[in-house]
Amino acid sequence: MRVDLNCDMGEGFGCYSLGADEEVMPLVSSANIACGFHASDPGTMHRTVRLAKRHGVAVGAHPSFPDLVGFGRRHLAASPDEVRDDVLYQVGALWAFCRAEGVTLAHVKAHGALYNAAARDLPTALAIAEAVRAVDPGLWLVCLSGSALVEAARRTGLRHVEEVFADRAYARDGALVPRTSAGAVIHDAVRVEERALKMVRDGTVEALGGGEVAIRAGTLCVHGDTPGAVSLVRAIRGRLEREGVEVAAFSKTEGAT
Amino acid sequence: MRVDLNCDMGEGFGCYSLGADEEVMPLVSSANIACGFHASDPGTMHRTVRLAKRHGVAVGAHPSFPDLVGFGRRHLAASPDEVRDDVLYQVGALWAFCRAEGVTLAHVKAHGALYNAAARDLPTALAIAEAVRAVDPGLWLVCLSGSALVEAARRTGLRHVEEVFADRAYARDGALVPRTSAGAVIHDAVRVEERALKMVRDGTVEALGGGEVAIRAGTLCVHGDTPGAVSLVRAIRGRLEREGVEVAAFSKTEGAT
Amino acid sequence: MRVDLNCDMGEGFGCYSLGADEEVMPLVSSANIACGFHASDPGTMHRTVRLAKRHGVAVGAHPSFPDLVGFGRRHLAASPDEVRDDVLYQVGALWAFCRAEGVTLAHVKAHGALYNAAARDLPTALAIAEAVRAVDPGLWLVCLSGSALVEAARRTGLRHVEEVFADRAYARDGALVPRTSAGAVIHDAVRVEERALKMVRDGTVEALGGGEVAIRAGTLCVHGDTPGAVSLVRAIRGRLEREGVEVAAFSKTEGAT
Amino acid sequence: MRVDLNCDMGEGFGCYSLGADEEVMPLVSSANIACGFHASDPGTMHRTVRLAKRHGVAVGAHPSFPDLVGFGRRHLAASPDEVRDDVLYQVGALWAFCRAEGVTLAHVKAHGALYNAAARDLPTALAIAEAVRAVDPGLWLVCLSGSALVEAARRTGLRHVEEVFADRAYARDGALVPRTSAGAVIHDAVRVEERALKMVRDGTVEALGGGEVAIRAGTLCVHGDTPGAVSLVRAIRGRLEREGVEVAAFSKTEGAT
Repeated sequence: MRVDLNCDMGEGFGCYSLGADEEVMPLVSSANIACGFHASDPGTMHRTVRLAKRHGVAVGAHPSFPDLVGFGRRHLAASPDEVRDDVLYQVGALWAFCRAEGVTLAHVKAHGALYNAAARDLPTALAIAEAVRAVDPGLWLVCLSGSALVEAARRTGLRHVEEVFADRAYARDGALVPRTSAGAVIHDAVRVEERALKMVRDGTVEALGGGEVAIRAGTLCVHGDTPGAVSLVRAIRGRLEREGVEVAAFSKTEGAT
Repeated sequence: MRVDLNCDMGEGFGCYSLGADEEVMPLVSSANIACGFHASDPGTMHRTVRLAKRHGVAVGAHPSFPDLVGFGRRHLAASPDEVRDDVLYQVGALWAFCRAEGVTLAHVKAHGALYNAAARDLPTALAIAEAVRAVDPGLWLVCLSGSALVEAARRTGLRHVEEVFADRAYARDGALVPRTSAGAVIHDAVRVEERALKMVRDGTVEALGGGEVAIRAGTLCVHGDTPGAVSLVRAIRGRLEREGVEVAAFSKTEGAT
Repeated sequence: MRVDLNCDMGEGFGCYSLGADEEVMPLVSSANIACGFHASDPGTMHRTVRLAKRHGVAVGAHPSFPDLVGFGRRHLAASPDEVRDDVLYQVGALWAFCRAEGVTLAHVKAHGALYNAAARDLPTALAIAEAVRAVDPGLWLVCLSGSALVEAARRTGLRHVEEVFADRAYARDGALVPRTSAGAVIHDAVRVEERALKMVRDGTVEALGGGEVAIRAGTLCVHGDTPGAVSLVRAIRGRLEREGVEVAAFSKTEGAT
Repeated sequence: MRVDLNCDMGEGFGCYSLGADEEVMPLVSSANIACGFHASDPGTMHRTVRLAKRHGVAVGAHPSFPDLVGFGRRHLAASPDEVRDDVLYQVGALWAFCRAEGVTLAHVKAHGALYNAAARDLPTALAIAEAVRAVDPGLWLVCLSGSALVEAARRTGLRHVEEVFADRAYARDGALVPRTSAGAVIHDAVRVEERALKMVRDGTVEALGGGEVAIRAGTLCVHGDTPGAVSLVRAIRGRLEREGVEVAAFSKTEGAT
């Protein structure tokens, strides 16, 4: 059994740092690197690509709506054409740092409000998928499990992987419970570990309110920017490995879709 | 005899337009497309790459210091590392639109204050050349004739072409007379035509104050954003062709340097 | 009888110009000056305040969502607190140029997507009204006639004026017909003149599909950035004056609310 | 004996924080609040003005060259007119938050590369002084002791205060030793305390290489964004007070110039 651990990285900006990239990088298999629209800047992108390279971590682009001050967390009513061009721009920018470091750009994962928009709005999802395919049809697209973006990847013929969140509550229909709802985020480390393991091993997650939901755990999202983040990632990885689950980048394995 | 005509393109931003791209594109052989740091945005970049493709014009990136409000015309004390990363970012961003349109990215030409800095400051020039080579060692670098950037291209082993300006006065040492000096810009269309022809045919230009300066006219810069620009470009091209000079992208010819 | 003619001004950015400010300024009574979030920059703001001063035109701030590349036309899911602080920032910035030129800041009119959000969403409307009152309780707030912003101005105790659009179709409930619908914009100059006159004189406008809608024409919005804009503004003003309607800034008259 | 302790504050941006504002605010008498050009955003500005108000700390604007990614530390070749308008914009923006909180805007201190430019280049210094006077002739201008900005304040008739740095080495001519030189920054807390006291009590500082330099210590700059910053500020303040020096905002005292 195998799973990818992915983490958003390179989310500092200028003199600001955010997240424990140095400590988390050795623990994950895929890094989603911000591209300057919600966070990051050319220098930060370059450093983060180098850091991923040093640890043999797969590099992905993490494009966003253009909203630096809001960290890309606010929905912006951008048209599909605008989304497509914004994604092309950002993926291309990150690609250049990969080229400079001799690293292969492996995947694309949308950030924040754009990720959410792509999960529920097919035209936005298709705009992202088309941009990714236009840059390189060999790129992987990271999609919220069961979302419109999965559908867009299929229609576009793009390799994709479904993403799950061990620390987020799921509704019975498989949707993530919004952060604003009670119980949306699970803080207990042991419970998060358990859920991660169950997601990977059984392909299910307990829904908020009871019952089980089927999910496809192609990649498990972990965080590097919350208190206790590093030890939680270490704990999840340790638990998975002790249970015989190999942690490896989906983009380096066969037939992930 | 052959020469390239290059023009800065895609210098609008959002709802703003600048320059007569639609009219000038059919008249030139190379387009330097802004990359969002002094002008342009993802939508404008995409449209401009498409326009160049439609007219078979070679596409280049036109990176700048990050200074949208100043149109990249103000010197910024950026370090060589910052310049290198800013250039990587911008060239990569434009490359993505080229990929999306099936166009080959052919060259890079720095913009405004960055172009000037690269002409006189070798560390800045080397930073640009190294960024360009890191993205793709087959890219051409456009350099002010006789400048530090030519030296940087040589040291880096990068293909390059020397650029001349038929409408700008040259000092006896071959430097451009600063725009703030009297006589720096030549407005008379017939004189500009004559100078262009002489530059290409004889490899010389008359210096301000008398005497001739040797220059290498690998590419001739024309403008699309001044009053009368389109008719001047048409006149220059017409004159060159009538005199038997072929207008062709340096990047599509052999051994230009 | 009296009416204000207001126009969005100072909507250039850096080297870009937009709208015929020089020609339109003498024809209007109130100028809404962009504050750098959807358009404009410090230099443009200063020049535009000076231009308004020269023509005795009342100066207002024209704050927006932060979206320069989208010209503030795209809805952004900003919280009421974010809207309040963004409006405070922008109004303060414009106020400084008014101080420098010895001009009184007279009013505030939200721009684009923020104007639309304020028309239908009371928390957003209240955030704007509270920001305006916090800067100066003597400022006027320009509100879409009959909108949530009118309600917010009332609750906040802020002087306000209701705005009408002679070139836009109205639905039977008094709402503006969205630009994306057929017939939303009226291009015929004579019809626009007629509608303007009827709005001011009768307080009504013909609804799309028939019937009349009551409106309060405290200020009439005219445009400076469309083809034929200047002659249309001139025609509207001429017609109003010939019919005995005085054009004067609402902020310079008594009891406009 | 009296001295002001000033600190740069509100230098976070969006979700990024920088500096220990909450801990340092109670220890200083004047806060220089970033205005969005090198750091800060409307929400951060509002929060920081509220924090200063809660502790009775005098509020000043901290304008910069427009360079968010470079934190305003890189020189930009802006013209005096551009500097003047950039300063007007930023001071006005901060003024609005002061109005909203019922706080008086007390002073202006330029940031980073703009501060350095104002110290050595009189046209830049005059542009800043004129902007400050245009907004409010009662504002104080914070100037590097003995710099061109002091001269500009005098010519403009603006109240000003001379600033000293207890943790920075001074050359024999009274200039700050550039950060890039060996010994430019003094890290030993006790030495910094001693120097602060001597500056305030004797009006002198020991020069690098020996000898004493006369300085006017109207305000002493302390930092909140370096390791150990909070305890150093506490130590300096404690030492000054034990030696009978009162810490009070220059803007709240008489005749500081």
